[in-house]
Amino acid sequence: MSNSTFAIGLDYGTQSVRALVVDVQTGEEMGTGVFSYPSGKNGTYVDPENPNLARQEPQDYVDGLVESVQLALADAEEHDAFDAEAVIGLGIDTTGSTPIPVDEAGQPLAFDDRFADNLDAKAWLWKDHTGHAEAEEITEAAQELRPEYLAKCGGTYSSEWYWSKLLHCKRTAPEVFDAAYTWVELADWIPAVVTGTDHPDDLQRGVCAAGHKAMYNEEWGGYPDEEFLAELDEGLVDVRRTLDDETYNTSEPAGTLTDDWAERLGLPADVPVAIGAFDAHLGAIGAGIEEGTLVKIIGTSTCDLMVAPMSEGLDDIPGLCGIVPESILPGYFGLEAGQSAVGDIFNWFVEVVQPDNLDHDALTERASKLDPGESGLLALDWHNGNRTVLVDQRLTGGILGLTLHSTPAEIYRALVEATAFGARVIMERFEEYGVTVDRIINCGGISEKNQMVMQIYADVLGRPQHLSRSSQTPALGSAIAGSVVAGAEAGGHADFDAGTAAMTGTKDTVFEPIPENREVYDRLYKLYRRIHDAFGVEGTEDDLYDVMKTLFDIREEVRG
Amino acid sequence: MSNSTFAIGLDYGTQSVRALVVDVQTGEEMGTGVFSYPSGKNGTYVDPENPNLARQEPQDYVDGLVESVQLALADAEEHDAFDAEAVIGLGIDTTGSTPIPVDEAGQPLAFDDRFADNLDAKAWLWKDHTGHAEAEEITEAAQELRPEYLAKCGGTYSSEWYWSKLLHCKRTAPEVFDAAYTWVELADWIPAVVTGTDHPDDLQRGVCAAGHKAMYNEEWGGYPDEEFLAELDEGLVDVRRTLDDETYNTSEPAGTLTDDWAERLGLPADVPVAIGAFDAHLGAIGAGIEEGTLVKIIGTSTCDLMVAPMSEGLDDIPGLCGIVPESILPGYFGLEAGQSAVGDIFNWFVEVVQPDNLDHDALTERASKLDPGESGLLALDWHNGNRTVLVDQRLTGGILGLTLHSTPAEIYRALVEATAFGARVIMERFEEYGVTVDRIINCGGISEKNQMVMQIYADVLGRPQHLSRSSQTPALGSAIAGSVVAGAEAGGHADFDAGTAAMTGTKDTVFEPIPENREVYDRLYKLYRRIHDAFGVEGTEDDLYDVMKTLFDIREEVRG
Repeated sequence: MSNSTFAIGLDYGTQSVRALVVDVQTGEEMGTGVFSYPSGKNGTYVDPENPNLARQEPQDYVDGLVESVQLALADAEEHDAFDAEAVIGLGIDTTGSTPIPVDEAGQPLAFDDRFADNLDAKAWLWKDHTGHAEAEEITEAAQELRPEYLAKCGGTYSSEWYWSKLLHCKRTAPEVFDAAYTWVELADWIPAVVTGTDHPDDLQRGVCAAGHKAMYNEEWGGYPDEEFLAELDEGLVDVRRTLDDETYNTSEPAGTLTDDWAERLGLPADVPVAIGAFDAHLGAIGAGIEEGTLVKIIGTSTCDLMVAPMSEGLDDIPGLCGIVPESILPGYFGLEAGQSAVGDIFNWFVEVVQPDNLDHDALTERASKLDPGESGLLALDWHNGNRTVLVDQRLTGGILGLTLHSTPAEIYRALVEATAFGARVIMERFEEYGVTVDRIINCGGISEKNQMVMQIYADVLGRPQHLSRSSQTPALGSAIAGSVVAGAEAGGHADFDAGTAAMTGTKDTVFEPIPENREVYDRLYKLYRRIHDAFGVEGTEDDLYDVMKTLFDIREEVRG
Repeated sequence: MSNSTFAIGLDYGTQSVRALVVDVQTGEEMGTGVFSYPSGKNGTYVDPENPNLARQEPQDYVDGLVESVQLALADAEEHDAFDAEAVIGLGIDTTGSTPIPVDEAGQPLAFDDRFADNLDAKAWLWKDHTGHAEAEEITEAAQELRPEYLAKCGGTYSSEWYWSKLLHCKRTAPEVFDAAYTWVELADWIPAVVTGTDHPDDLQRGVCAAGHKAMYNEEWGGYPDEEFLAELDEGLVDVRRTLDDETYNTSEPAGTLTDDWAERLGLPADVPVAIGAFDAHLGAIGAGIEEGTLVKIIGTSTCDLMVAPMSEGLDDIPGLCGIVPESILPGYFGLEAGQSAVGDIFNWFVEVVQPDNLDHDALTERASKLDPGESGLLALDWHNGNRTVLVDQRLTGGILGLTLHSTPAEIYRALVEATAFGARVIMERFEEYGVTVDRIINCGGISEKNQMVMQIYADVLGRPQHLSRSSQTPALGSAIAGSVVAGAEAGGHADFDAGTAAMTGTKDTVFEPIPENREVYDRLYKLYRRIHDAFGVEGTEDDLYDVMKTLFDIREEVRG
């Protein structure tokens, strides 16, 4: 036995939930447990008739909570130093916006036999786009009546977000909508469950989900006002009345584990549970975010996160999907940007185009041998639209510079480079608005697996690329939140500064920009930016005559 | 035995020479013989160190002449109606510009032991691009000194053409250049050989090669003047002095078969031999070209040919690679346009990208099931530059509208559509300058094999697509030339009108435009034209903001 204390982070992903047991003093990951949601296809109900639909089974979340924590504890027990009695806090992150319709007792309608087979009564997963028409309606109404609402979310309200989903349910499944007392984000519901918050009126909602997805901001007194919602649908006004205009950040406790849940999970009673937040935001904490640090979570898409001190104020930043006070760290604005597809673009090329049956490793090996500019190719990374800074789902990917000799490896590299150029646009947008990027920390599978990608990012962004030490940053960030709500006296941390200092770090490997690559990429980026603006920004009249010729010249120069 | 007469067409292609025996009254193809050039790789000497180099062995041309004619005659003998004694004329077409350095006796330097292993002393095949720097030099000099020279060849003198090759030889292999008395196009050399034209000063050169490749035009008195050539290199002036300023079209005889050659070929003595021309131009005759008919030869690249009566005069047409009096038919301007790559683009996708290991048939089958506009894709067909109307080798291919779901079949169809849009630009350029297209006749492998391609061309061009009856149009056109130089009295034809009327035709299958497809393609063509101009035409400032969105809208509309 030692004096170590431990915190548990619960990370609700798209296909599974992971529990991670972490040493609060060192950040050492003692044990982990994963539970894959059994319902639907890979955990999600889909509709062959409607590719926009994605729903999940709330019961899977509860079953996964028990199973993943038990597995993680069993795994941690392998360490002599571990003792479940020394677990001092629990934090929770989830996907989002993933709202669940609940009844007056806070129970998901899906638990009710009447709705057992009704997909509209399940959890509406973040990537459910059934509300795209309603999203446009909300955007148009806000443009006219409440432009300030849009200024905080990049100018467009998304079909992935809270009110779009609710409004779509009201319009297409009124029997479900009418049966719901309110709708609760998954990130708020799990803390409520384990802390025994029975009535939804008593629910403490997190500012992260509220601010990034539900148009919540203290500037206008909280959630959108009833007059605005009434313009859309009276049903939304009823829901609005169930929402408390006080919200909380993840340094604050939602409560403590009930005796019943402590027993089911095998944990001490009264363990404090942090307010929930989204995976990306707690992931940024797990990566060690602080002022001046850009955390890039690179997966099928990316999430680019920064913080800026609220004491200094901050102008709205056009094209950013979210600017929300305390959505990441207390006292700071949480800033969220992102690319709609990154790994998904590489996967499209490998799995859909299937060039020469080459896999990622083989393509990467060949593409690594190419010099910047050598292929003469230039691509646009908009295969799934553009989230930042253009915020336009109707944009599409492209590639220029093709010849009769363009190889799969050249195209693969051009796609990687395109995502790096897209990342540079985001970084420059932060800096244009005074949010300086001093350091970049990458996390997510691609950053760990693909050195070529990281080197290209270093060369294109012109900044060293650091890698998060942990490969489970969301769960680690949640564990840090658990350690913070436990507090220093209980063997946790006084605040996030102390928590991230003790529990996070970066790997020794750092990808440094190579000056000659950077020089070529600076020239290619200028071309990228011109076609980016030509196709993406209204009113851009550019003479693109020299674009292909410049690519040609660069290619000839590089080839020597 | 019958009263039938026959003509032979000799078609010197890139890999082989074909002889075709044709019934002069009906156009029936009685027999054919093919001889593949044995030297080099697939008949061409290449240099692993220099991808621009492509040379051929003149001896292969002579061996192929004998062998292919003998094979064709043996094949024709299977028909009871055939009699070699009834062969009344011989016509010859070749690739070009394919100049051969020859000595004072008209013998290729390659026949000289001193140069037996010297690739610079061989035939410089049409696709040899070693003279690209010299081509630029010639273009620049002409821009300054003789802009009229460029007006007839689309504004740019090509590295594939006569003077570029000679100048490159002078600069890099002066020992070969100095040993040559003159340089003779393959299309002129073969007729000279079989008619016993020993001294090059007696050579009758064809207007087709001279006009399309060697800056020959009666407007300025023939070949380029000595003052201009002296600016480039005095060596070119020496060659210029060997060139007779009188040239001939293919309705004129180069002479008659010598006794020796008649015997070697197994033909009657004194058979008249037509002046030679390029394969595409005699191919247009074999396809039945006449005023108002656009002949499209669709292969790895395309050649688009029309004729316009000289009696009416004709303005220069910007971007056309050639406008040459009588290069196709006597009394008509021969107009040549083309796309640098068509089949080559489809081959690139199948053979280099190798999507999902699908071949042309499988991709075509899937792509055929797609509706126009359904994929949301729009491609540029510039993988090998743009020959007409932009005349720019530095342009490259591209594709827009890619999503995470874009399939190989969708991309394949988009590439086919792009070549159709490129074909429409050419057709519209002809018509803008008063050369009306009343009928389109396609020939070449792709037009015969791929019905989807022909339907897309019908829909995009908005014109019925006819197919040449013969699949050997160049050899057939040469045989027609043979029948014309034989003359009506000898059982041939009085002129090409009579010859093509008797000997050519189209297939019963005609691809008619489908109105609803045409409507969508009209909309897509507008977008194609905008990106065509944006990247291809200097000074085009377009707001391309709506391009991707319009593609998106069309896609959504078509998908319903």
